Amino acid sequence: MATVKPSLAKGTRDFSPAEMLKRNYIFNTLKRVFKKYGYSEIQTPSFENLQTLTGKYGDEGDQLIFKILNSGDYLSKAPNDLLESKSSTKLISLISEKALRYDLTVPFARYVVMHQNDISLPFKRFQIQPVWRADRPQRGRYREFYQCDVDVVGSESLLNEAEFILIYHEALKNLGLQDFTIKINNRKILSGIAEIIGKPELIVDMTVAIDKLDKIGLEGVNKELLGRGFTAADLEILRPIILLEGSNLKKLSALKHVLSNSEIGLKGIAEIEESFDYISKLDSSNEVLNQFVEVDITLARGLNYYTGCIFEVKTNEVAMGSIGGGGRYDDLTGMFGLKGLTGVGVSFGADRIYDVLEELNLYPEAKGDFTKLLIVNFDKETESFTLPLLNRLRKANIAVELYPTAAKLKKQMSYADSKGIPFVLLIGEEEVSSGQLSLKDMQTGDQRKIDESSLIVELS
Amino acid sequence: MATVKPSLAKGTRDFSPAEMLKRNYIFNTLKRVFKKYGYSEIQTPSFENLQTLTGKYGDEGDQLIFKILNSGDYLSKAPNDLLESKSSTKLISLISEKALRYDLTVPFARYVVMHQNDISLPFKRFQIQPVWRADRPQRGRYREFYQCDVDVVGSESLLNEAEFILIYHEALKNLGLQDFTIKINNRKILSGIAEIIGKPELIVDMTVAIDKLDKIGLEGVNKELLGRGFTAADLEILRPIILLEGSNLKKLSALKHVLSNSEIGLKGIAEIEESFDYISKLDSSNEVLNQFVEVDITLARGLNYYTGCIFEVKTNEVAMGSIGGGGRYDDLTGMFGLKGLTGVGVSFGADRIYDVLEELNLYPEAKGDFTKLLIVNFDKETESFTLPLLNRLRKANIAVELYPTAAKLKKQMSYADSKGIPFVLLIGEEEVSSGQLSLKDMQTGDQRKIDESSLIVELS
Repeated sequence: MATVKPSLAKGTRDFSPAEMLKRNYIFNTLKRVFKKYGYSEIQTPSFENLQTLTGKYGDEGDQLIFKILNSGDYLSKAPNDLLESKSSTKLISLISEKALRYDLTVPFARYVVMHQNDISLPFKRFQIQPVWRADRPQRGRYREFYQCDVDVVGSESLLNEAEFILIYHEALKNLGLQDFTIKINNRKILSGIAEIIGKPELIVDMTVAIDKLDKIGLEGVNKELLGRGFTAADLEILRPIILLEGSNLKKLSALKHVLSNSEIGLKGIAEIEESFDYISKLDSSNEVLNQFVEVDITLARGLNYYTGCIFEVKTNEVAMGSIGGGGRYDDLTGMFGLKGLTGVGVSFGADRIYDVLEELNLYPEAKGDFTKLLIVNFDKETESFTLPLLNRLRKANIAVELYPTAAKLKKQMSYADSKGIPFVLLIGEEEVSSGQLSLKDMQTGDQRKIDESSLIVELS
Repeated sequence: MATVKPSLAKGTRDFSPAEMLKRNYIFNTLKRVFKKYGYSEIQTPSFENLQTLTGKYGDEGDQLIFKILNSGDYLSKAPNDLLESKSSTKLISLISEKALRYDLTVPFARYVVMHQNDISLPFKRFQIQPVWRADRPQRGRYREFYQCDVDVVGSESLLNEAEFILIYHEALKNLGLQDFTIKINNRKILSGIAEIIGKPELIVDMTVAIDKLDKIGLEGVNKELLGRGFTAADLEILRPIILLEGSNLKKLSALKHVLSNSEIGLKGIAEIEESFDYISKLDSSNEVLNQFVEVDITLARGLNYYTGCIFEVKTNEVAMGSIGGGGRYDDLTGMFGLKGLTGVGVSFGADRIYDVLEELNLYPEAKGDFTKLLIVNFDKETESFTLPLLNRLRKANIAVELYPTAAKLKKQMSYADSKGIPFVLLIGEEEVSSGQLSLKDMQTGDQRKIDESSLIVELS
């Protein structure tokens, strides 16, 4: 077996104990909130049949799906002409029938269709699993990363939209974030705008352009709109809409005026208003609506996909892209033959949230998750005392280790130090005979005598 | 987008909310025990560079590794002659540079080598992640399944072996199992036996044969040994060893006699004795050693790999193969150029444990994990009462849902029923005006009046 200098596959990461602790803290906080709102966890397999995934993410997406090579003599049935002409793309489906999950949405749609007889609608599920994309890796972009999705299918009620806003608010607050914005828009409003301009067929071009307002400003947006088939007269109509300002109430009222001739546009506004009405009744302090929610009609993410409300969340405490998003889609399961099932859901960007909490120093101390006490191993003789003690401490549910050999004290202390173990118990001949143990606090360096029962109380 | 009738990739599974709950119960129980013994969680990526994995699992294993097709024009650099001759095996490394994790051990070895400057030895880690194998799927064998590994590297102390036996005992007891056997053997004892027969080169043949004692009996084993190069005289020496009976003490004492001329054999016995000595001191009741541990020299799993103690665990309450196993390996990281690092570890078979708990009906009731209360939605008017109530109950940390629309009562009750929600709150005009809510217990069918504060106490 030749020696291989080990390396990670490009775009992937190991997670050390300290990183796992922080990631689990985020996931567990999210899960608690999801469960409180009635969502249950499911998991789907890491790979799906290739045909389940292809054609769902556009041509570009299809390229980024990781395909798994068939096992065995995978070339045996490959046509000679494809091999000779090195037709990589055409050959794929002949040598690969499985692929890694690209997101959690398509596997969820497959799940709903396959389990439609076992689940009762509305079906509320969350799912926290890795996905894989053959993107070019760069800072903050990985080929393996976790998605945290929470969706409900089979319910048209806008109570769901309202609750997702509360879920975002509660989850991010629980993670210690103070200042963030939950942006809301509605696909129907965008359709309405395209309609009143008289260019409904250009809705995608329009939204792609105005979505860039933050980055390129009004002048940039206008330039792009002109390039995409809009006229100077169209820009005149669009300008007040794009530059909409003031409170949510004011924005909605202005929009109602502009869109008064568009049935679909008014429907979009009414949907936002109904969601807000639900939130007001749920949260009578109106804190969530007034401080955290912002109507933003330049928000257009996933337009090909969403049919109703669209969400996006960003933190205002750290410079960072969006840390979450979602919306309503009216035909999630149609691609698998189950028509007319509406759904709405949001997603949390775990990797970005990880970085935000790191930068704001919001991780709680790692209480209880790591070893709390290291018993120093002096020599073989004292093991007759330390081993039963070790067992009693564990019976009291304390995470404790005995250093496995009588190594030099310095080495044992440095082990405790590097592992972040907060207390060290020193037991030599004197401690064995008196029963008074020496407890060292690794943070302060203080050392004091303590008996076993007080030790258990202190560490529990 | 053509409609695809959805199906799962062969050998993979979805996990429903009820299944996730049970799986999480197992994983969380194991994690608690691992942490108490000083083990910390790590995770490694789902795919590794192909060269990290190949050559580590034997030829048969290499075939079962799922390879990921390179992205883009993967055929462009493939030599024409390999394509023309359809040389599937030779082509692999030219069109695939990544592969799915086959087990947790090799990625762990890579992790240790790559992070050797950040970790302090002994390094105690656990890892619970899926692995993938291109095996032919059959009942109980999947292409994606979870492994739960707990290992320590960098410590020769047999305290580690002793603690793994205690970890098995405590974890399985915590899961509710009463009667199970932790079998222990030592590779050095097997070497010693091969040595006294004078055929050390046949150690693998010998152990493969005697490993089958349970299945094919002594006669079958003898037949196989004769076929593998042993003589009738060898069988005479082997017979009393294979049929070793009685207490662990008796077995070890008989073995000492048989192996008195084999230094390595005696070393193996001494290692088991020292582990047992540690256990006796830790668990002074000797319950673990006397009731749960059995010396079994026919145990030979992973022989090419293990160099010291070997473990295997089986339950005696249900007919099922082993539910765990492990051992000591003296050169885990040598394959990646870091020599001389010893390790010992065990693994829990999560899928089999899942089935065992199912069969013995050992899962606790799903308290707190699912929605506890459904508020029935009567009409739009009562929402002014039910929405603020919903929010207050959630603020009291109760998992509660309001049915999102005023659907027929029967439909709402059947939703609660199918989701296993234990209580339903009925709020109509009368309840709104009196403040006395109607609480229905879905299990008993009883219905009674309750005020909000009593409800919170009852459901908390």
